[in-house]
Amino acid sequence: MESGKTLLAAAQELGVTIESLCGGKHTCGKCKVRVSESNSEESSRKPGRKNPSPFQLEENKFISGQERQQGYRLACVAKLRGDAIIDVPEESRFVPQVIRKELKGISVDLDPGVKSYTLELPPPSMKEPLGDFERLERALGNISGLKDLRMDLPILQTLPEKLRAGNWQVTALVWMDHAVLDIQPGQAEEFYGLAVDIGTTTVAAYLCDLKSGQVVAADSTMNPQVVYGEDVMSRIAYTITHPGNGLDHLQQAILEALNGLAQSTAKAAGILPDRILEMVVVGNTAMHHFFLGINPHHLGLSPFPPAVHRSLDIKARDLGVKIHRAANVHMLPIEAGFVGADNVGVLISERPYIQEEMTLIIDVGTNGELLLGNKERILSASCATGPALEGAHIKFGMRAAPGAIERVRIAPKTLQVKFRVVGSEKWSDECIGAEIGAKGVCGSGIVEAVAEMFTAGVLDRNGRFSKSLSHDRLRPTDKGREFIIARAEETAIGQDIAISAADIRSVQLAKGALYAGAKILMKVLGVKRLEKVILAGGFGSYLDPRRAMILGMFPDCALEKVLIAGNAAGEGACLALLNRSKRIEAESMARRVEYIELTSHPDFTEEFVNAMSLPHQKDDFPHLEGI
Amino acid sequence: MESGKTLLAAAQELGVTIESLCGGKHTCGKCKVRVSESNSEESSRKPGRKNPSPFQLEENKFISGQERQQGYRLACVAKLRGDAIIDVPEESRFVPQVIRKELKGISVDLDPGVKSYTLELPPPSMKEPLGDFERLERALGNISGLKDLRMDLPILQTLPEKLRAGNWQVTALVWMDHAVLDIQPGQAEEFYGLAVDIGTTTVAAYLCDLKSGQVVAADSTMNPQVVYGEDVMSRIAYTITHPGNGLDHLQQAILEALNGLAQSTAKAAGILPDRILEMVVVGNTAMHHFFLGINPHHLGLSPFPPAVHRSLDIKARDLGVKIHRAANVHMLPIEAGFVGADNVGVLISERPYIQEEMTLIIDVGTNGELLLGNKERILSASCATGPALEGAHIKFGMRAAPGAIERVRIAPKTLQVKFRVVGSEKWSDECIGAEIGAKGVCGSGIVEAVAEMFTAGVLDRNGRFSKSLSHDRLRPTDKGREFIIARAEETAIGQDIAISAADIRSVQLAKGALYAGAKILMKVLGVKRLEKVILAGGFGSYLDPRRAMILGMFPDCALEKVLIAGNAAGEGACLALLNRSKRIEAESMARRVEYIELTSHPDFTEEFVNAMSLPHQKDDFPHLEGI
Repeated sequence: MESGKTLLAAAQELGVTIESLCGGKHTCGKCKVRVSESNSEESSRKPGRKNPSPFQLEENKFISGQERQQGYRLACVAKLRGDAIIDVPEESRFVPQVIRKELKGISVDLDPGVKSYTLELPPPSMKEPLGDFERLERALGNISGLKDLRMDLPILQTLPEKLRAGNWQVTALVWMDHAVLDIQPGQAEEFYGLAVDIGTTTVAAYLCDLKSGQVVAADSTMNPQVVYGEDVMSRIAYTITHPGNGLDHLQQAILEALNGLAQSTAKAAGILPDRILEMVVVGNTAMHHFFLGINPHHLGLSPFPPAVHRSLDIKARDLGVKIHRAANVHMLPIEAGFVGADNVGVLISERPYIQEEMTLIIDVGTNGELLLGNKERILSASCATGPALEGAHIKFGMRAAPGAIERVRIAPKTLQVKFRVVGSEKWSDECIGAEIGAKGVCGSGIVEAVAEMFTAGVLDRNGRFSKSLSHDRLRPTDKGREFIIARAEETAIGQDIAISAADIRSVQLAKGALYAGAKILMKVLGVKRLEKVILAGGFGSYLDPRRAMILGMFPDCALEKVLIAGNAAGEGACLALLNRSKRIEAESMARRVEYIELTSHPDFTEEFVNAMSLPHQKDDFPHLEGI
Repeated sequence: MESGKTLLAAAQELGVTIESLCGGKHTCGKCKVRVSESNSEESSRKPGRKNPSPFQLEENKFISGQERQQGYRLACVAKLRGDAIIDVPEESRFVPQVIRKELKGISVDLDPGVKSYTLELPPPSMKEPLGDFERLERALGNISGLKDLRMDLPILQTLPEKLRAGNWQVTALVWMDHAVLDIQPGQAEEFYGLAVDIGTTTVAAYLCDLKSGQVVAADSTMNPQVVYGEDVMSRIAYTITHPGNGLDHLQQAILEALNGLAQSTAKAAGILPDRILEMVVVGNTAMHHFFLGINPHHLGLSPFPPAVHRSLDIKARDLGVKIHRAANVHMLPIEAGFVGADNVGVLISERPYIQEEMTLIIDVGTNGELLLGNKERILSASCATGPALEGAHIKFGMRAAPGAIERVRIAPKTLQVKFRVVGSEKWSDECIGAEIGAKGVCGSGIVEAVAEMFTAGVLDRNGRFSKSLSHDRLRPTDKGREFIIARAEETAIGQDIAISAADIRSVQLAKGALYAGAKILMKVLGVKRLEKVILAGGFGSYLDPRRAMILGMFPDCALEKVLIAGNAAGEGACLALLNRSKRIEAESMARRVEYIELTSHPDFTEEFVNAMSLPHQKDDFPHLEGI
């Protein structure tokens, strides 16, 4: 292996995928590996030269003294200077994320942007000296009433052959009643649209049959932009520190993901990607700008203006999206600087604007987005929740991949713990040790663990470990104490999986931001009580409403009125793909929603500090009484 | 030099340009060269192997027995098999064509497709949470009333910087009142449009300042497609015989020419091509299809339907035209299969549809196009005139380049000849031999020569050499007789320049087609006499109306009513570039013109046969009495 590369880069070249949430930025500590044997190629010449390169101070944060003795290193820091044998521990192995962006189910009248018309044209004659396009237009007008049609160049180029190949019987695919996107000889084959939700961490795609309105395939992938920064602000920062090509790197990364999803969903449906005639894309404002190659710098500076609010239709080929060569990409509009097209997707999917009930919609992601209102008025806000609720920046945090602890129960007195991992139907107490195979804790597992630790008395209201409590699951570390959820023998990583004081703090910050945000919106709207709470987002799908409320993620509400919405943003994209009136609805509702900049509200800081408690005021949670 | 290449290809690689009208298809005989010394690299191994490759039968057509003895070969046939010294005779040297596509002068109200607006925007604030684009749109709406704007992706991508670079004072360039093509910080620089006339043989471009309406630069170039065929039908045939990439070759060739003209005219105006914000293109239907990459096969087959009649607006970048990255290319509409956007250019430039006088417009080119009518009704037709009137397929024919004989006078009794060449102000009898330097005869010279030969009695009414006449300028050849226009000592090629019987036949066929076409149109329209004749086209500019009428190129008309229009097609393109109402006029007039398929008219053959005479019926030309 070439000398001078990091172990992470070397492993990637060999096809070994090491977990690396931060993308090699030395900040997540997930890429810990053990160097078991090494040989410096240059040792004979330079005896002092070590292989791998010497231990760096920044590794101290993630590697204990004992681990250092055993040869542990961060793969993104240590550089190869010769051959070496590297062990990648189970917890550092990259496991593809489970697709956790299911839709709760699409139900909408079918009125897609692209429609097909089967036509029979009279062949050209001296008496009817019409051009091929005018001949097509007349026939199309006769059966559909459409007029003033336009034709995209790639289709015009092959129009003469297509008409003749079908012996003047053809199917025309028309976008928005005016642009002819394709002509097929004879009867139409099926044609498709792709709805895409570009999340900061996960990109989900839903392939829809535009003739039946069915979702025929779905897939998701990690947003490859994570290598340039874990959250929106760090990616914007990347474009600023790399003015030459930073934006291009981000755009190419997301394009690669989209083209991959177009390929994979098309393959699953047994078609080629060129049968995809339209794409509808949602994403937060930064994802929107990165995808379109729009300079995002000003998004990061107050007053955070996006380059454009309205919806856009852009030729897929102008973006480099490899679907049908005349296809358009429809971007849903943006609400405000940090409340993007993804939230518009949530909006048109959940439609709070037609509801009587005062509804709070929380879209949980790396960036949390809130909607509060009903048919009278709707407010929106954005909260920097951080990645804790997605399992990042948590000591044993991981994505919702097989082996991730997603549910946790702690018996109040015995502090006996049982848990369930992604990919298993059984709780840990129904299995035998090795069979359990826990690898870490994902977002919903962290919420449940902290909520259960609180109700079991392990944590006090401030999130501190109970001083009076003594238990073998509660043990000291360098930095305070930690609570063991899974004992080493129940794991696949050979060590205890525990929740640390720092982890709890991260969760408190995240849920505090959401809670405080909701409270500010309630104040602005003059609302005392929520009548409905909708938890959306890939994370939301697997969240337990009761424990989310115990944790204090949102203000009190009747538990039966706390609903899980799945990937509502993605669902909104599907709806806009299948019914063009949803696009008009999106445009007008995006303008109707009033954006509230939380941090500029005078009460925000106080609310935020209060909201860090677990749950901070018992009086605020009458529905939790009796816990 | 690499072995196996033709001499023509080898010369091209060395930067030596040999004349090759047919583009190496062995059909024009213009690339005659003399091999004065050669050495076969393989002669030691294969003694019989000659360098260059052996003389081919097809060369006989152009190379006499004597020339063959002297080592003459066609450069497109003979292949190198070793080193050789090649003489390129003066007449085979390629000389750039003189730009003969002048406009007669543009006068139109300025109302271009692209307009500029200088704006001052309020900077973004928390109170005004508009996106940058919406902010721009509002400011633009305030001063111009424009609304529902769209923005092309490449411009949206840089919008945030552009607005801030101008400190919120910017100039917006808006196409057709709805598409923002560019944003410039501060006050606008000049911006430009390019009008292009794609002729079968010559491509002309006119760079217009869209703020002043002035033509600021013009240039023309040979259509590089000639290497794939000299006329429209042979280029269509090329795409059929090369189904894989033939059309692509033709499209790339014309693109290269257009990009070259954008460069050269921009350079002449001291700007970069990216300051060109719109292009208007005219050309015959085949040129239109080749440029757009539209399969032209069906254009060549009855009933000759084009792929599209209407005007088109296409992104320059989608075509590969290298001007401003958001610029559009506007194609004027097509009238009928063989009457293309070039004729629409003529139509909106000459406007027969607003005239009282019964007007015949002849656009002379490799394909001749006719318009006949007035404000009541207008007919159009297309005639295959062939390239004779452009100096091709004529023994000593050449383009209108320096040295080309363009005017000819023959004294009736003495048959004394005087002539004038392109690039000289003097007639040949005012110069001394070598000073004259004639190299060949261009289109207008051929028309004058044949007309003068007729009036001087050298030719009879059937175009045959007078049997009774004997003169040292009239001499026998292998194929009948020929008449010497320039004696060897008056030329730069060291041999007599003569007009042969075959040349006269070609001219008769060409002018007969135009005349017969005009007669058929007059019959269809029920018109007895022409009140006006307009000669348009690069050729038309230098044509002498009197001698054109003597030749019988068009039916009788008062000589003072025979006008020369210059490049009316190119002028039409300029008009459409400078005034958008001319585009609407073009669209509606292209539909109003009635296309007449001449060859299907029952009288065409008879008219054509009669029209071969010089002038065929004296009674038809009362205005020529007294000649």
